[in-house]
Amino acid sequence: MTNFDAKSLANVGVRNLSPYQAGKPIEELERELGLTDIVKLASNENPLGLSKQVTAALQDTLAGLARYPDANGFYLKSKLAEKLGVNINQITLGNGSNDVLELLARTFVNEHHEVLFSQHAFVVYPLVTQAIGAKGIAVPAKNYGHDLDAMAAAITDKTRMIFIANPNNPTGTFLTTAELESFLAKVPAQVLVVLDEAYYEYVPAAERAPSVEWVQRYPNLIVSRTFSKAYGLAGLRAGYAVTHADIADLMNRVRQPFNMNSLSLKAAEVVLDDADYLAQSIAVNQAGMAQLIEFCEQVNLAYIPSYGNFLTIEVGADAADIYQQLLHKGVIVRPVAGYELPNHLRVSIGLEHENQVFIDALKSMLL
Amino acid sequence: MTNFDAKSLANVGVRNLSPYQAGKPIEELERELGLTDIVKLASNENPLGLSKQVTAALQDTLAGLARYPDANGFYLKSKLAEKLGVNINQITLGNGSNDVLELLARTFVNEHHEVLFSQHAFVVYPLVTQAIGAKGIAVPAKNYGHDLDAMAAAITDKTRMIFIANPNNPTGTFLTTAELESFLAKVPAQVLVVLDEAYYEYVPAAERAPSVEWVQRYPNLIVSRTFSKAYGLAGLRAGYAVTHADIADLMNRVRQPFNMNSLSLKAAEVVLDDADYLAQSIAVNQAGMAQLIEFCEQVNLAYIPSYGNFLTIEVGADAADIYQQLLHKGVIVRPVAGYELPNHLRVSIGLEHENQVFIDALKSMLL
Repeated sequence: MTNFDAKSLANVGVRNLSPYQAGKPIEELERELGLTDIVKLASNENPLGLSKQVTAALQDTLAGLARYPDANGFYLKSKLAEKLGVNINQITLGNGSNDVLELLARTFVNEHHEVLFSQHAFVVYPLVTQAIGAKGIAVPAKNYGHDLDAMAAAITDKTRMIFIANPNNPTGTFLTTAELESFLAKVPAQVLVVLDEAYYEYVPAAERAPSVEWVQRYPNLIVSRTFSKAYGLAGLRAGYAVTHADIADLMNRVRQPFNMNSLSLKAAEVVLDDADYLAQSIAVNQAGMAQLIEFCEQVNLAYIPSYGNFLTIEVGADAADIYQQLLHKGVIVRPVAGYELPNHLRVSIGLEHENQVFIDALKSMLL
Repeated sequence: MTNFDAKSLANVGVRNLSPYQAGKPIEELERELGLTDIVKLASNENPLGLSKQVTAALQDTLAGLARYPDANGFYLKSKLAEKLGVNINQITLGNGSNDVLELLARTFVNEHHEVLFSQHAFVVYPLVTQAIGAKGIAVPAKNYGHDLDAMAAAITDKTRMIFIANPNNPTGTFLTTAELESFLAKVPAQVLVVLDEAYYEYVPAAERAPSVEWVQRYPNLIVSRTFSKAYGLAGLRAGYAVTHADIADLMNRVRQPFNMNSLSLKAAEVVLDDADYLAQSIAVNQAGMAQLIEFCEQVNLAYIPSYGNFLTIEVGADAADIYQQLLHKGVIVRPVAGYELPNHLRVSIGLEHENQVFIDALKSMLL
């Protein structure tokens, strides 16, 4: 069997698909460069580590891990429904919100459809679109963020889904409640709007859109959230969608029954009640953001004002080189050339001393 | 927006898809019937609970859970590659082997293809096929197991993938090395054969097929394995495929980068070295299988001889009623009417006292 050509057997979209590039793991840099004391500010993770309440709950849960997880996620969905003021049948759980985004595309989008997203928006939107063989359309950004007027104008008869990240990753740009609502009012009912609010908790309470409430009025609106950021569960994979019940029903048909494992179900359930951890996440983020911005202004580096837990800084044409130099100093940040931002680096907000390690390392290169 | 019809927006295959029915979780039965001391023999889980080595390793890993998992699963893939004698680039990790099966279908199968599987075979094969909109063909079984001659004869120009479960769930039937190899030799190179070996470790060593070695000779062969059974990690979700490197490359493009979480990566890595746990899993299974078979022969109940960690017993036309009665006695087994086996119940092998609870409960109904 010498003429085996796996690629010719793959679906068309898959053949030219590039896998998602994750942030460099700390262990990998240790292996490659023999470094220790590495500061990772690359993946918009929560620098606090796991909530203590979650740690305790997970230890109690270990004994039952030879059993399958609850395929319905009853307790987590009940708690989310109560907290969000929706019915339990409006919630779909995901193995991270990445899983939610992919489920949506697989449930509703096919190769005859168009999917809209913004230039500089989260790379998972084009990836899930391409895997299906649908046509992804990146609408040019305005000031690094979503140009909602241009996106509304780009809707055609073939448009089935629109991804909106708010705040956006990797630019941190933010759409106001008024901007979003005016956009939703323009979108036809047969076009699904996925509002990806992975960084929702970092937005000041007064500026947060009432997105979950909007689902009642706009049944074509899907709100996606994650436990990977402010709730600090990136390593456990937990996310969810709030939708019209009929959308949740369809997504649940496609969802892998055990997509969230027993520990992530338990951790997400527990951390929802850990108000102190969430408050501390937000406080650490505000302080770290101020620290990074102060540095940028001191040294005259432009940055994109951010509502997330990261700051995307314009370091200039040698961004790739600076990224490599930072690695050799044990600091992992994120290059964003793949987002058409070749002169920028995205820095996640860490603990104060981690931010300072980054600041000192970058300063030593700029001077 | 009163005319919202989510179903009309869903992909054709999804519209009529029924979600996978998981075994009833213990907590659910507690909620519903107010029972305690429930015996769950419904989901082919490992009755030993988690390996002690895994428990210790997970406790050490909790602190890092706010970080994303290693998207490449470097350490687990390295260990698997070494153990299996393959290259690291031949391995694809899955969030359970369910994820592997789904990835395969999504990578290689489209709506123009046919997918073959056996009557009475694992329900995930038709589910992933239907979600994609491909045509699933259930080839009639022979003695409750795969009829490989009939399956070979069912191959057409449209056949892209064939799922073979060995041992099969829920019937426990087994194909010999000679039967499998003769089948593989007949399958054209452009038809992918997925050999699902979820129950591989329970097969006596002398009877196990050299399936991983075959991948060198048959590049269209995909071997799928899981950590959910003999390795006792069902609640953590860990599985993998061994394939030609080109197939792994394509699957990895479609795979969610963080499909396996940090704890499942660590647990799978550790349990691969826990030879005592694996030996105990197999010993407990052999003893429990003998216990159930002895009971069946005592009371003259027919059963399907099984190579798995479960026994499918013919209890008669009132199987659904017996299932309900068992629930009320706190014993969860699995009805298999959905597998065209309306007179059977599938009983997972538990600990000796758990099997006895089932035996006593069923005996009291039969007498």
